[in-house]
Amino acid sequence: MAMKQAATAAIRAFSSSVPSQSSPLVRHLHASAGSKKIVGVFYKANEYAAMNPNFLGCVEGSLGIREWLESQGHQYIVTDDKEGLNCELEKHIPDLHVLITTPFHPAYVTAERIKKAKNLQLLLTAGIGSDHVDLNAAAAAGLTVAEVTGSNVVSVAEDELMRILILVRNFLPGHHQVIKGEWNVAGIAHRAYDLEGKTIGTVGAGRIGKLLLQRLKPFNCKLLYHDRLKIDPELEKQIGAKFEEDMDAMLPKCDVLVINTPLTDKTRGLFNKERIAKCKKGVLIVNNARGAIMDTQAVVDACNSGHIGGYSGDVWNPQPAPKDHPWRYMPNQAMTPHISGTTIDAQLRYAAGVKDMLDRYFKGQDFPAQNYIVKEGELAPQYR
Amino acid sequence: MAMKQAATAAIRAFSSSVPSQSSPLVRHLHASAGSKKIVGVFYKANEYAAMNPNFLGCVEGSLGIREWLESQGHQYIVTDDKEGLNCELEKHIPDLHVLITTPFHPAYVTAERIKKAKNLQLLLTAGIGSDHVDLNAAAAAGLTVAEVTGSNVVSVAEDELMRILILVRNFLPGHHQVIKGEWNVAGIAHRAYDLEGKTIGTVGAGRIGKLLLQRLKPFNCKLLYHDRLKIDPELEKQIGAKFEEDMDAMLPKCDVLVINTPLTDKTRGLFNKERIAKCKKGVLIVNNARGAIMDTQAVVDACNSGHIGGYSGDVWNPQPAPKDHPWRYMPNQAMTPHISGTTIDAQLRYAAGVKDMLDRYFKGQDFPAQNYIVKEGELAPQYR
Repeated sequence: MAMKQAATAAIRAFSSSVPSQSSPLVRHLHASAGSKKIVGVFYKANEYAAMNPNFLGCVEGSLGIREWLESQGHQYIVTDDKEGLNCELEKHIPDLHVLITTPFHPAYVTAERIKKAKNLQLLLTAGIGSDHVDLNAAAAAGLTVAEVTGSNVVSVAEDELMRILILVRNFLPGHHQVIKGEWNVAGIAHRAYDLEGKTIGTVGAGRIGKLLLQRLKPFNCKLLYHDRLKIDPELEKQIGAKFEEDMDAMLPKCDVLVINTPLTDKTRGLFNKERIAKCKKGVLIVNNARGAIMDTQAVVDACNSGHIGGYSGDVWNPQPAPKDHPWRYMPNQAMTPHISGTTIDAQLRYAAGVKDMLDRYFKGQDFPAQNYIVKEGELAPQYR
Repeated sequence: MAMKQAATAAIRAFSSSVPSQSSPLVRHLHASAGSKKIVGVFYKANEYAAMNPNFLGCVEGSLGIREWLESQGHQYIVTDDKEGLNCELEKHIPDLHVLITTPFHPAYVTAERIKKAKNLQLLLTAGIGSDHVDLNAAAAAGLTVAEVTGSNVVSVAEDELMRILILVRNFLPGHHQVIKGEWNVAGIAHRAYDLEGKTIGTVGAGRIGKLLLQRLKPFNCKLLYHDRLKIDPELEKQIGAKFEEDMDAMLPKCDVLVINTPLTDKTRGLFNKERIAKCKKGVLIVNNARGAIMDTQAVVDACNSGHIGGYSGDVWNPQPAPKDHPWRYMPNQAMTPHISGTTIDAQLRYAAGVKDMLDRYFKGQDFPAQNYIVKEGELAPQYR
């Protein structure tokens, strides 16, 4: 950590004294004019692309900015081919200026790729969550990393509430009966509950966590939250949620636990065997944050033993989840691919947010302050 | 209709002048003391019965009132065998005094069965919705029909909100990908939306409809409702829902339509081909009310054409739904067996409510007024 701070300080000192593009260590965000090479990595839509004119978040939709970029003389390459040394993305690493990607089909920006990307200045996340970037390496290299903060927080919070209800009310076994031609109410009802009166705890009460708590308010639950910071007292009172300073003390109280924290060095593997054991037996867990916050095998074991009564989320480690990912086959899971933040509404918002930041980048203007994840060698507070 | 009213009037005149049990037409609810024969028809839980000590709503759980009934000298028969002339229920029709059943596995109480049931005085629904009873025949025969009003309204409203989210956000295709070993975000995202900003209309804003609207409030939707009666102005303002006097004028405005009306002569087949055609193309429909409110084939056709973009509910016509019920196989359905009102929490409440009414019945006391569906030959307002 000390080494990284020193490196950052060095870059800053260096970049302020030598305003040049020639050093591989300095990438001035707003310094260079002229044509840029911009690469976008998105998921491919194939036959689905034409089904919705607002489907902007896929390769085919390309965030709807191709015409705008090309009319200004920029080059815009878009691909879904992002893994291995022979992939399409790798070909463009040496000379791209800007890389845009999404958490739904993330281009993993490793220290090696950053080293190779001599012209790279800007990493944009079309969505929220930039853990696919080695943020320390990006900071050390003087890159700017930014995301469209707020663009899909409502989308994710709604999806979390859906997953809470799906688990609490034991929806999926009933649906599976229907498609298999069966009818067995008891097979569902013996573990179906109302949400009313249950205790819901969120680990993390940032933008998404707060929106979830607000939406939970009319359900008459007991609401708990753990975070670094207390919610503003006025809002806390309005939502009726109780602050839990000690996460481990909160866990045994919760019938439902929701993970709403970014993936950082501190949260990677946070829910390992020992921490899951601290939860109430039969706890229902919703995780739309990041798969790597959980110890993959510990979740499988706890679902098998019944200590976790149900697990739902849209995030996996890695993504796309391989065919043999054990979460696909564990009992009482209500998983989907990474989808909650890429509704059509969210796509329209994050496409607009990316366009706005590119426009500011071309004009040498700052981004909205809350969008920065790495700026001038510094990580945003939630990633420190 | 005129005939039925005349019959009812006749019974009333008769019963007030001749307070006797001997006439087959008069069944005084609170007149007779002594041992009663009570029959309960519930779904069977089999291996699931022992999995939850609060699983009271099944044959094995028997509402948890066996010991209490038998200690008072009453006979209590419980079965799930309810169809045809050779079923267990049919054997007890001639001499039972009270029949308890649930909407989740309804004993259909036809005019023929009422005619045969010479000792029958009281029909209790463990739950809400007594359309499995021929209410006019019950009224004409002087029976009392009552349900545990309010016992599972929260359960059903929560389930409706879950289904709205499941459809709007296109949850199921994603889950099916997971269990099939696939990963195709585009296959989900091209028709996944936020609930925020959409227009939701409820046909019926009684107890359940109001609870749904209250829970929808923080989602920032446009909320509409159609009912015979306007909601109390104070509550209407608090929820922010707009009254639509003309249902057919409301339909084309709604992205999501929720059915919250009882099944009556007026609502049977209400959503036929013509009425579905009045809805917005791609409308999402949630129906936890009763299956027969919809024209079965019209729903299938509209799901196939895409006019209905998604259909979810837990009610079917008939129940249990046969293996070849077409709703099992139509596209974009998110169906389950009839389950929303029989969560463990709901079971505890409706078991307590049935026990309370039986206690009052034995003691010759009135039931809570809102529980009556048929009283002294009169149908409750919502069934008229």
